[in-house]
Amino acid sequence: MRSSIIYRNGLVELIDQTRLPNEYKILELRDHRDAADAIRRMVIRGAPAIGVTAAYGVALGLATVERDADVDERFEEIIETLKNTRPTAINLNWALERMARVFERERGTNLKDLKTALLEEAHRIRQEDVLTNKALGMNGSQVIDYGDTVLTHCNTGTLATTAYGTALGVIRAAHKLGKQIKVLVDETRPFLQGTRLTAWELQQEGIPYWIITDSMASQFMKAGEVDVVITGADRIAANGDTANKIGTYGLAVAAHYHDIPFYIAAPTSTIDPSVADGTEIPIEERDPGEITRFQGIQIAPQGALAKNPAFDVTPAPLITGIITEKGILEPPFEESIARVKGKRFDHSQIKER
Amino acid sequence: MRSSIIYRNGLVELIDQTRLPNEYKILELRDHRDAADAIRRMVIRGAPAIGVTAAYGVALGLATVERDADVDERFEEIIETLKNTRPTAINLNWALERMARVFERERGTNLKDLKTALLEEAHRIRQEDVLTNKALGMNGSQVIDYGDTVLTHCNTGTLATTAYGTALGVIRAAHKLGKQIKVLVDETRPFLQGTRLTAWELQQEGIPYWIITDSMASQFMKAGEVDVVITGADRIAANGDTANKIGTYGLAVAAHYHDIPFYIAAPTSTIDPSVADGTEIPIEERDPGEITRFQGIQIAPQGALAKNPAFDVTPAPLITGIITEKGILEPPFEESIARVKGKRFDHSQIKER
Repeated sequence: MRSSIIYRNGLVELIDQTRLPNEYKILELRDHRDAADAIRRMVIRGAPAIGVTAAYGVALGLATVERDADVDERFEEIIETLKNTRPTAINLNWALERMARVFERERGTNLKDLKTALLEEAHRIRQEDVLTNKALGMNGSQVIDYGDTVLTHCNTGTLATTAYGTALGVIRAAHKLGKQIKVLVDETRPFLQGTRLTAWELQQEGIPYWIITDSMASQFMKAGEVDVVITGADRIAANGDTANKIGTYGLAVAAHYHDIPFYIAAPTSTIDPSVADGTEIPIEERDPGEITRFQGIQIAPQGALAKNPAFDVTPAPLITGIITEKGILEPPFEESIARVKGKRFDHSQIKER
Repeated sequence: MRSSIIYRNGLVELIDQTRLPNEYKILELRDHRDAADAIRRMVIRGAPAIGVTAAYGVALGLATVERDADVDERFEEIIETLKNTRPTAINLNWALERMARVFERERGTNLKDLKTALLEEAHRIRQEDVLTNKALGMNGSQVIDYGDTVLTHCNTGTLATTAYGTALGVIRAAHKLGKQIKVLVDETRPFLQGTRLTAWELQQEGIPYWIITDSMASQFMKAGEVDVVITGADRIAANGDTANKIGTYGLAVAAHYHDIPFYIAAPTSTIDPSVADGTEIPIEERDPGEITRFQGIQIAPQGALAKNPAFDVTPAPLITGIITEKGILEPPFEESIARVKGKRFDHSQIKER
């Protein structure tokens, strides 16, 4: 499958995810404003992909500066433009901070070298994301047994990352290992990432799947048709509380009730040790029109009110383990997270596989 | 609000619920085949409304018989046509059995009197439904406190019954008593009865409400924003296990986890003492296209598979009480159900209120 984020000739190419699967359209980003717009409109989404897109947004935004005297102001404008696009996914801040560190370090050099260094850092963030996901997928595949049915929510595949995916990376790895798995895909209202994007990716991989409405998950658990639940994450607090696409918390409650293992799959860049627990994670409220309209068609009565929190927080006690590129973190998460955040991950080890 | 089922000049008028709220279209049923088609296509839905429509279907189907010799064959054909439309809601069978009893009793009389008796029985079933719902609503209003937020699923209002509603009847009654309630309305995928129908009814009543996706319910419970959950039912087993619109079971699990009372509101005609528990209730599987398409628009990849059970079963231990026209049944439901099914309900008492 084609990577969701490709740099070519000074432009960044994204697949417009608002149009999939009916239309496959490549969108070109010219600068940081295009990148911010793509993130805000969910042309690209998924915490890791948002991070990579933001990193390229910085590089693209700086690339057109012509006078050294304009650099600081432009950089500030770029960061301001990008950082306020979506509040929940921490990978956005994480990527911007990495870019800011390179900016600080290279600011003294000439403009050309600064631009090159920023573009190289964006390439590095992108490339690391692929390798991280492959390691994460391989680590996670051990929680899936032969013949298992995995239930997942939202899209966490190539489209949500640079390539391969997080929760969907785990599913890919298990499939590749010949585990004969099946997948139940939550449609994931209101944006239908499951129906539109995850089904599209699984179909291309030849992994057997069925789409279900989010409201069916508990019923399939009760019927014994779910062996393990794996979702992604938008931000993980220091204690393991995890913000992810709305509906994840309900799945975790249902999995707990039915004694089914519930895993989060995310790179360690999604862990935000600066927030102690889930109550400190900002939850994005999106346009209620995403609930009351469907692809431009009004479905609710005119004037109907709706609530549209885009994420919820699953408390750590409902999480069996957090699958990362550095291994599967287990409770107590305060300890396993502290350990892993202090450990450097050597991407070069993975390249060889 | 106009009743959802009106008999006029030998025809039965229904509001086409597949088109609401964007289009308000009255559909006329001429015979039992029209009635069966309306039930199957969910032009009319909701267990009590299905029962009333089926009863009229029998009366309409018999009305055009011209020779006494054709009566038995026609009656058999009518029952066959109607009883296989939708398998889960027991009110369908219940209404057909009432019509069959009248048929048996009056078969000996002349054709005209038989037709009149059947039409009168359909009228009686319809009228009883209104009175039953009003009594049920009044009984149920006591589980709602001043200022409560009630979460409900699917549509259980005038559109799901003849008028007033079951769970929505309880909400109506509490609102009328000045309890200053608010309602969270599950959109109810895939058919969106919450967004399209319940919101439409609440808006007309001036009851404050917000639509949420089904996947948000747990999150609002966790946030302390749900005081009580009330849903309808399609069939209640002798032990209290309750089949209702898919997603109800997940709500019950979540309510249980958050220690929030979970009530079923249904007329006693929805109780089926012939099934011992929920495992014996047939669950309708509908067209997967209801999940993969939206109002004719393909949303999943071409060839995508989906599962579409239309109902789930909530086990009795997750149910706080069953609100009926004869009072609120409490656990152990085997006993409270046995008591209430033996008790005759005097509809004339309610008329006076």
